[in-house]
Amino acid sequence: MLPIRVITYLTQRSLLSHGLSLSRYYCQKACRKLRICEALSGQQIGENVKIQGWVRSVRSQKKAIFLDINDGSTLKNLQVVAHPELNDKRLTFGSAVEISGSLEKSLHEKQNVELQAKQVQVIGECNPLDFPFKVKERHGLEYIRQFPHLRCRTNTFSSLLRIRSEATSAIHTFFKENGFVNIHTPIITSNDCEGAGEIFHVEVNKKLDEGNSNFFSVPAFLTVSGQLHLEVMTGAFPCVYTFGPTFRAENSQSRRHLAEFYMVEAEISFTQSLEDLMSVMENLFKTTTEQILAQCQQDVELFHKYIAPGHRVRTIDVLNCNSNNFAFKVEASILIWGSDLQTEHEKYLVKHCGNIPVFVINYPYELKPFYARDNSDQPQHTVAAVDLLVPEVGELCGGSLREERMELLKARLARYLELRQFGSVPHGGFGMGFERYLQCILGVQNIKDVIPFPRFSHSCLL
Amino acid sequence: MLPIRVITYLTQRSLLSHGLSLSRYYCQKACRKLRICEALSGQQIGENVKIQGWVRSVRSQKKAIFLDINDGSTLKNLQVVAHPELNDKRLTFGSAVEISGSLEKSLHEKQNVELQAKQVQVIGECNPLDFPFKVKERHGLEYIRQFPHLRCRTNTFSSLLRIRSEATSAIHTFFKENGFVNIHTPIITSNDCEGAGEIFHVEVNKKLDEGNSNFFSVPAFLTVSGQLHLEVMTGAFPCVYTFGPTFRAENSQSRRHLAEFYMVEAEISFTQSLEDLMSVMENLFKTTTEQILAQCQQDVELFHKYIAPGHRVRTIDVLNCNSNNFAFKVEASILIWGSDLQTEHEKYLVKHCGNIPVFVINYPYELKPFYARDNSDQPQHTVAAVDLLVPEVGELCGGSLREERMELLKARLARYLELRQFGSVPHGGFGMGFERYLQCILGVQNIKDVIPFPRFSHSCLL
Repeated sequence: MLPIRVITYLTQRSLLSHGLSLSRYYCQKACRKLRICEALSGQQIGENVKIQGWVRSVRSQKKAIFLDINDGSTLKNLQVVAHPELNDKRLTFGSAVEISGSLEKSLHEKQNVELQAKQVQVIGECNPLDFPFKVKERHGLEYIRQFPHLRCRTNTFSSLLRIRSEATSAIHTFFKENGFVNIHTPIITSNDCEGAGEIFHVEVNKKLDEGNSNFFSVPAFLTVSGQLHLEVMTGAFPCVYTFGPTFRAENSQSRRHLAEFYMVEAEISFTQSLEDLMSVMENLFKTTTEQILAQCQQDVELFHKYIAPGHRVRTIDVLNCNSNNFAFKVEASILIWGSDLQTEHEKYLVKHCGNIPVFVINYPYELKPFYARDNSDQPQHTVAAVDLLVPEVGELCGGSLREERMELLKARLARYLELRQFGSVPHGGFGMGFERYLQCILGVQNIKDVIPFPRFSHSCLL
Repeated sequence: MLPIRVITYLTQRSLLSHGLSLSRYYCQKACRKLRICEALSGQQIGENVKIQGWVRSVRSQKKAIFLDINDGSTLKNLQVVAHPELNDKRLTFGSAVEISGSLEKSLHEKQNVELQAKQVQVIGECNPLDFPFKVKERHGLEYIRQFPHLRCRTNTFSSLLRIRSEATSAIHTFFKENGFVNIHTPIITSNDCEGAGEIFHVEVNKKLDEGNSNFFSVPAFLTVSGQLHLEVMTGAFPCVYTFGPTFRAENSQSRRHLAEFYMVEAEISFTQSLEDLMSVMENLFKTTTEQILAQCQQDVELFHKYIAPGHRVRTIDVLNCNSNNFAFKVEASILIWGSDLQTEHEKYLVKHCGNIPVFVINYPYELKPFYARDNSDQPQHTVAAVDLLVPEVGELCGGSLREERMELLKARLARYLELRQFGSVPHGGFGMGFERYLQCILGVQNIKDVIPFPRFSHSCLL
């Protein structure tokens, strides 16, 4: 039993009554502790507040010190005005501070609000000589990529992370509102999906494993797609989705590939038409993008201003000008015969259609995996597959109706067959590359710049 | 360039104007195609509708056939009444059907609505002799676990999956509403976190890899925790979280362990008090549980009725009776000295406190990892760590303030040190086992029964 003689209970008073937001809780507790996004809202003008964050600039003048403070809750900084007596030589670019004072209406045109400091405390020092980022300098994406533990301290990357978080939330909301069940498909799997060669193997430490060849008793891999596991679920649910990491051991240093990336995948039961899939793809794209544009206005603006000038118009074009005809639809069987579309073909096609998203449908039978549903057409012989191509990125989504007819599958794969045995229904699904989506709406050229910790061949930092 | 002579565009008419839910879209398209949860709402009584789903029972009588149909949108079945002429020998338990007819008010006390069938079509057959589940039989969790591709067809597991999906959504919503940024921490990592021995290694196929020792140029592992990567983000954001899979190569067949499981992890900047962490843990638990109880009433009821009788009262107790004192707080330093709490100790402690959640705080210095913040107290010498213990499950959350003071860390780990160099701030965080959470609120004994595709030693099915 328990090795104790005395147990002392401290009855815990209410920690936080339900429904009170954390930020408000902090405020109450520490006398109006505010996040900077809250301070900038202007609703607390005249009040004494405390803010915490990192110094983005220091300007010492005779009568006052001006500090710009950022806490990551928003792209914008809060200007702090402090008496020269409050100066501290440790108040440098990058240092962490806690400042209390009164929020006042600012006379500057650039901001509504400023904080008149009464107390300035340096919480964490930052040696500006060692710190790789320099004040007021816009560092290139390639430069900041070298510092995986610090790049969140730049405007660009902290905006990206807020957008990525909002996009994630928008995707979950979209599927929930449309009745999809979220399935956590496994990361470790014993099936190698499409027989893709470039997969990662999972093994226990060889030292631990001596004489014991395999932890799972079967070869185990990192998933390349949750499709098979979602298809299992189409035998019991009207529609399901998954949103998580997938893996490719592609030995590529290109700006288009990662070893670990995120994919949204959906499967819909009882569907017999590619249009059902296309409508989900289109709505997913539009709803998510609209939410991001509405919720992350300033963050998106940063990308459309500095990273990809002109991109805003293109994004808006996609959403607005074509709200009734989101995309053209192109018959793949007319385009291609015998060789698949390459990235440059995809881009050409999108450009040719007026730089808007394009659905390519009905691919030649030989070009798509065994599970794509046979259209049984003549003379082309196509399958009911669909790709969504978007400007600059190329293929954003790929999907198909899935072959549910036993006689057509029988000649193919025994493993796949098992899933079709009991009350099998026509269904279809698709996957969307989440990083490619972010690249598409933000105009970011390199996929490594839209993921917090990129993994690729010869690189696994942190 | 593009290998085409003719490109034919088919201008795509509106697929689905924004804002229209998918289920409504299907209705319009296919003349009131309804999900069963919609049909059961009773709002379409008198209308002609089409439903699709799987047969849960067939009762043939002289004047009519009665079918129970389930489509996974809800636990409840829709009763279909069909003329004997519409019978089909393929209408068996488990088969997939599409039925159209008119929705009528039911005279039965068990249901409000029934479908008077005009057309019954078998979409997918199901041989009842081969199908491992039998009509009207309640199969044990252990039995259904043997059929990873079919267990979603049982009431219990489809309820579990709907609850899991709702819980996932509730967790994301909780963090979003409290201003946390969602960070996708990496699955593949080059750090082995707490030096845990039981980690999985990631390697490329040996065949591909000949003469090329390592894909990433460094040893790469599957993550055991996103903490380090979240801590990076506390250098730029007020609070961050991650919710995703984590891995342990624990060679255990116990009902408490999985090789792949989900964890919610959060980190909060500028905090210097365990109470900040405890308030987040408490609110996360309460908000999520309240949302599940509200949104998945019938599904939760199934567990509290058949799987863990009496558990409903305990769950409600936790939420209601203690809304102002969610938990006791116990000083770990008084409880234990020199040896850590074991599962049986945890359970005893929770029981002793009245079967409600218990926070255990301030653990002996030697028992917690290097990153836990030193309380610098005498004579016990403790660290600011906190565990949340809950009835039946034991440890649900574990967290600590993190040591940010360079001089105290310097003697320890060089790697960890790098992260603390620039504008380091006091911060803290915790992790919550998602499967344990589900076990806790549902009363499920075996962790393998609350995850879609369980992975553990010697088992990686599908």
